[in-house]
Amino acid sequence: MKAIEKPLIILNFKCYGESIGSNAIRLAKIAERVSEGTGLTIVVAPTFVDLQRVASEVSIPVFAQHIDPIDLGSHTGFIPPEAVKEAGALGTLLNHSERRLLLADVDAAVSRAKVIGLQTCVCSNNASVSAAAAALNPSMVAVEPPELIGSGKSVSKTKPEVVASTVKLIRDVNDEALILCGAGITTGEDARAAIKLGTDGVLLASAFTKATDPAKVLRELANAIKGR
Amino acid sequence: MKAIEKPLIILNFKCYGESIGSNAIRLAKIAERVSEGTGLTIVVAPTFVDLQRVASEVSIPVFAQHIDPIDLGSHTGFIPPEAVKEAGALGTLLNHSERRLLLADVDAAVSRAKVIGLQTCVCSNNASVSAAAAALNPSMVAVEPPELIGSGKSVSKTKPEVVASTVKLIRDVNDEALILCGAGITTGEDARAAIKLGTDGVLLASAFTKATDPAKVLRELANAIKGR
Amino acid sequence: MKAIEKPLIILNFKCYGESIGSNAIRLAKIAERVSEGTGLTIVVAPTFVDLQRVASEVSIPVFAQHIDPIDLGSHTGFIPPEAVKEAGALGTLLNHSERRLLLADVDAAVSRAKVIGLQTCVCSNNASVSAAAAALNPSMVAVEPPELIGSGKSVSKTKPEVVASTVKLIRDVNDEALILCGAGITTGEDARAAIKLGTDGVLLASAFTKATDPAKVLRELANAIKGR
Amino acid sequence: MKAIEKPLIILNFKCYGESIGSNAIRLAKIAERVSEGTGLTIVVAPTFVDLQRVASEVSIPVFAQHIDPIDLGSHTGFIPPEAVKEAGALGTLLNHSERRLLLADVDAAVSRAKVIGLQTCVCSNNASVSAAAAALNPSMVAVEPPELIGSGKSVSKTKPEVVASTVKLIRDVNDEALILCGAGITTGEDARAAIKLGTDGVLLASAFTKATDPAKVLRELANAIKGR
Repeated sequence: MKAIEKPLIILNFKCYGESIGSNAIRLAKIAERVSEGTGLTIVVAPTFVDLQRVASEVSIPVFAQHIDPIDLGSHTGFIPPEAVKEAGALGTLLNHSERRLLLADVDAAVSRAKVIGLQTCVCSNNASVSAAAAALNPSMVAVEPPELIGSGKSVSKTKPEVVASTVKLIRDVNDEALILCGAGITTGEDARAAIKLGTDGVLLASAFTKATDPAKVLRELANAIKGR
Repeated sequence: MKAIEKPLIILNFKCYGESIGSNAIRLAKIAERVSEGTGLTIVVAPTFVDLQRVASEVSIPVFAQHIDPIDLGSHTGFIPPEAVKEAGALGTLLNHSERRLLLADVDAAVSRAKVIGLQTCVCSNNASVSAAAAALNPSMVAVEPPELIGSGKSVSKTKPEVVASTVKLIRDVNDEALILCGAGITTGEDARAAIKLGTDGVLLASAFTKATDPAKVLRELANAIKGR
Repeated sequence: MKAIEKPLIILNFKCYGESIGSNAIRLAKIAERVSEGTGLTIVVAPTFVDLQRVASEVSIPVFAQHIDPIDLGSHTGFIPPEAVKEAGALGTLLNHSERRLLLADVDAAVSRAKVIGLQTCVCSNNASVSAAAAALNPSMVAVEPPELIGSGKSVSKTKPEVVASTVKLIRDVNDEALILCGAGITTGEDARAAIKLGTDGVLLASAFTKATDPAKVLRELANAIKGR
Repeated sequence: MKAIEKPLIILNFKCYGESIGSNAIRLAKIAERVSEGTGLTIVVAPTFVDLQRVASEVSIPVFAQHIDPIDLGSHTGFIPPEAVKEAGALGTLLNHSERRLLLADVDAAVSRAKVIGLQTCVCSNNASVSAAAAALNPSMVAVEPPELIGSGKSVSKTKPEVVASTVKLIRDVNDEALILCGAGITTGEDARAAIKLGTDGVLLASAFTKATDPAKVLRELANAIKGR
């Protein structure tokens, strides 16, 4: 599996009908082709149920949408980090706006992931939460103002000050974590704006998974990030 | 896939190292062989990540360990019932002692499962919660006093009065749901005691998944339930 | 303090500016006057912080809005049933649509309340959840379809079939619990409709707490329930 | 009410039988006397139900044990910051080990408290979570390794490296927040060790509330912190 190099795009498949089951494979293969064509790192994050199949069918990095901060053991209905790793995932999203975690559990999940060799992308809803997340030393932090998620209005163009202050506050506490932004990212222009604001990439969901032509949308984003 | 007929055994794989990944396949195949050999319905419930692989490799019924009461859509890190169904599951556990749900969500998950054709086994911690669960009309209710889970002391022999009152209170409100009991079930004698108390089967985890000889343990339980 | 006799009105003060602090005392005294004037049982449920003051200033029954299913001990930021009782409360709401509880915790809270002598009114969002709640033997069940809460459209006139099926399903499993309905209850006509559908009273919040003339609104409701 | 000056002691009353109702008043008066006698800031944090009575009877600072990150409005069973403020509290604990919060809710509660003029003491379970908490700019951070809470083994003597690294990591991201430590703090020696490690005070619960002679315990702690 390819390593993660910046800049990058993370595609969150969420639980859309358009991106579960066989559709997850189809979309992951599109992402793989665009990654190969553009040379950009593209990560796909399918549902838990599709994780193993997707990871076995594409060579781009696969992330889980969440892991639980647990060791293997007596847990029913949980997502053990080891199972995600064994299924072939390279990392995981954490604390997405739709799946917020206890502060102590973000910390525990990031630590556990590090121990077993999973990367982590902690999502946040604003600049101060981004700084707090960065203080926990995850691989990446992705800021996503919840009111813009799925809105088609990109955070990078609608609320550039949120992205800029996020980058600043994160860098005050953490020099290494990659910084992404998400919420409403749809066009190449949105992605270019994100990079100009100092981020290392973007996180998106419906603009790709529900697109009439997902390959075209993704290629435009990747080219914009590559500066073409 | 075989239908569910009573009496039955449900094997909860939880998140044990002994029952995730390739071990999940191995244990599911053992369960399949014992089911074929004894004629007893045996259900396996692997982690979400292993669900699709297990369901594609065995012909016995496969359950998820949990579903979220959601429609397909914008949900990150959740378990949509449709994804579980598409992965080949016949049903799901719900409200396990280690993954308790809001009362309203047990209701919503049972209803959603019914709509898309998944069976449901709602777990409960005592007789009154069992009656409440039964009032929601799931396919099955499984009573498991939490203090006995994983203890090796079976509910059917240690607290027969809990099982008996559970059967009584459930039948006062629901004539159809199958009734199981769990917690500490290990031996044929435990299983026989459960059936004598009026249940339709047993739910177990570590006694099978962590056994030196899981096939032997399961065969003894199956034969005891079959009255042999 | 007066005992609770049916029919009755429960006034949920929630966390409105109009009903916390000194406003809680003012509204509770209005409720007391209307109760004395009409002879109807009227219960007030202020915030935890106001509980003790309200209970010491009025003679009508005072409920908490919630209790935690805990014993006295090492719990920070919780609502111990004993503290609510010592503050002078006669009972508590439980599982309100805005404060939903785990199924097992509704059961534990109802049981704990019974042990220390607090009444319980378990809220529910539909008929099947009402039946499940009733199976736990609380003092009362109050059905409130969440989409009508605060809408001004009363459940008793907009969704009479929900109220009727709730009454039927509850009575199938429980002969004794009082049955209330709430959500959108505003006028005497709403209250009368609720009683005609077989309920023992109504639960309301903003229609009283935010009224220009709360005494008038409450008097109209009380008289309608009294059949005047 | 007296302002908060460092160094200080925060007394968490939790939900002990020894510290609710009239006992809360009694213990708060003891704390007031010791504060007057020693000149040390001592904060008491009683249950929500006792907050108003305690605040009206003593002149030392009173904290809530928790607030919910909500505006006034349609919330049942919640703790609105305004109600806590109106009851006379000067601040609140947040994210105690027994009442952990979502990362985003710690941020929202700290922000909301600031707006209405309540101080905040965010509790944490280790050094990295302390740094994350400090990035949210609360008034204070209190580190409490959960395994030592109520143990009688003080964090400052048993795990001095946790306290030292907490102080270091917090100061890397925040120059102003007061730093406390808790868990097992019982004797003057424990308190002195905490101060020597660079903290501004200690947080304790059962060692005071359940003491045979709470005044004596507290006086010893206060004198030790004062360097006597």
